[in-house]
Amino acid sequence: MSDNGNIEKVVIVGSGPAGWTAALYASRANLSPLVFPGRALSKDVIPGGQLMLTTDVENYPGFPDGVKGPDMMDLFMRQSLRFGTRIVTDDGIATEAEGGLYGQFQNVDELDLSSQPFRIRGDGGHEAKAHAVIIATGAKANWLGIENEQRLATSGGGVSACAVCDGALPMFRDKVLGVVGGGDSAVEEATYLTKFASKVYIIHRRDQLRASKIMADRAKDSPKIEFAWNKVVTDVLGDKHISAVRLKDTVKNDESTLELGGLFLAIGHTPATEFLNGQLELDKKKYIKLKDPYRSYTSVDGVFAAGDCVDSVYRQAITAAGMGCKAAIDVERWLADKGLE
Amino acid sequence: MSDNGNIEKVVIVGSGPAGWTAALYASRANLSPLVFPGRALSKDVIPGGQLMLTTDVENYPGFPDGVKGPDMMDLFMRQSLRFGTRIVTDDGIATEAEGGLYGQFQNVDELDLSSQPFRIRGDGGHEAKAHAVIIATGAKANWLGIENEQRLATSGGGVSACAVCDGALPMFRDKVLGVVGGGDSAVEEATYLTKFASKVYIIHRRDQLRASKIMADRAKDSPKIEFAWNKVVTDVLGDKHISAVRLKDTVKNDESTLELGGLFLAIGHTPATEFLNGQLELDKKKYIKLKDPYRSYTSVDGVFAAGDCVDSVYRQAITAAGMGCKAAIDVERWLADKGLE
Repeated sequence: MSDNGNIEKVVIVGSGPAGWTAALYASRANLSPLVFPGRALSKDVIPGGQLMLTTDVENYPGFPDGVKGPDMMDLFMRQSLRFGTRIVTDDGIATEAEGGLYGQFQNVDELDLSSQPFRIRGDGGHEAKAHAVIIATGAKANWLGIENEQRLATSGGGVSACAVCDGALPMFRDKVLGVVGGGDSAVEEATYLTKFASKVYIIHRRDQLRASKIMADRAKDSPKIEFAWNKVVTDVLGDKHISAVRLKDTVKNDESTLELGGLFLAIGHTPATEFLNGQLELDKKKYIKLKDPYRSYTSVDGVFAAGDCVDSVYRQAITAAGMGCKAAIDVERWLADKGLE
Repeated sequence: MSDNGNIEKVVIVGSGPAGWTAALYASRANLSPLVFPGRALSKDVIPGGQLMLTTDVENYPGFPDGVKGPDMMDLFMRQSLRFGTRIVTDDGIATEAEGGLYGQFQNVDELDLSSQPFRIRGDGGHEAKAHAVIIATGAKANWLGIENEQRLATSGGGVSACAVCDGALPMFRDKVLGVVGGGDSAVEEATYLTKFASKVYIIHRRDQLRASKIMADRAKDSPKIEFAWNKVVTDVLGDKHISAVRLKDTVKNDESTLELGGLFLAIGHTPATEFLNGQLELDKKKYIKLKDPYRSYTSVDGVFAAGDCVDSVYRQAITAAGMGCKAAIDVERWLADKGLE
């Protein structure tokens, strides 16, 4: 092994709010955590998590004037480095002295949780053994995969996959907004957006909602919600800000244009748990199951989880960070219990 | 009623990290939350919570250079005001335009959860009715109640009630530290402090620990932990920083001096739940019980709880803030379910 047989006290996989907060608390507990942050442009774990794709974050408490997503993740990273966090890069282990550059970080390629110590191999070749592992790999919102959708989403151009995060932004006030999806969360997001919007279209590929009856009734009863049935979005129009979407009718096959001041995707999330290869117990939606929902213990002793790879309900930076803190405190006590500190 | 019969969508009681984060999320959801922050110098709910008694906060993610506790709470308050939070003061309802001054805030005097809408009366006379209430009143560390202990605790003079929060501070490195207490948390804190200290004394009023056997064995096996049995602290010595404690032997009644570079209290916490007068289900230690430990619903429909008044395990600013976010999101969905938005 390239680590000369040293066993890490704790390895952290992922580098969103949960991962860095776990690293902060673990480093302050003198555990010298080793972080595999993920790799930029990979399809799996993105260094910095979903906030790297976010412009203004207004709902992370402590920043009354807002903060840019990538700036916020840089603050998190620097804070955890300050107390002794070590980061796996292609050039070796980065510490505070060396700082860290997004893009050179390693993702986890192989993870063997079958026996103690656990074994972790990075996609840049770094190998480690560890007594404890914290999984904080996050989840990705599902997107339509249209080029203009991605362009406007990453530039703050009025396309978003999170109504709770972005709905209150001034750009959406008194505008006609669209929500793509037909499940409970589509109705939830549409209902939320009626607080700000003049009108909200639920754009759904079928002629009825998959949402539960109570949710579907709520949407139908809302004077501000209308439906675009049997429609799929084929393009998003607009230069700096969305102005409309192109819709294709799934029955008649004709196309039309719907003017919109904002578009919200509500077609689900995919937690980054596939790389676990079934080694941890997951729920039906592939989120990691916690043994006790208040704590961070998973189905494998010594493996802890935090953030959006666990959370299908709230998915906020602040909730993920809180879970990262819990995981580090649980790890510290677990190591002490086992005499492994 | 002084509110002319208007019914608030949500009232938030308390103004630590949980309360302000709940207010931030509730205000961004257009719920115009009304906050009873607590009253300065009261024995109950302190505006700003325990962080108002804290000097440097190094473990709240996002502040790599640390932040003063009161400054952090001011940032939280201003951020929630920015999105429409309203604060109950002795001079009326403060909004963003008016800002808010610590010390003029109202605490909750009476809370009637027996029927909808709930009724809340502030100790400065403000009365409100509300569909939903979030309890975020926090908990207080128990202290010995000695004047010099309080003086050195509030001035950053090396006396603390939270090893996880403060143990990593440079002032405690390689010092002889004392932990007062005899339960599991005293051993937990002492074990944690051995990472930094040259030696840790557990100072206990009896001749054996109340801690569980496994914890007691761990303390006895640690080469860095020693015991001061049958001792109570009668005074804390030191001008700007603690230099020693005066101890009284509970059996022999004689006094002695123990030189220490830091003192940690681990004699329990008291959640601020007494004012609820049994209207919510509490656990044995008087913390509010959640119906589902992952969510924020309490035993009374429409009442939600967040932060240290719920949490006997982690007690960190970041975990409390995460819970405040959950409570606001749960309230928003609950109001929508009931058609009360």
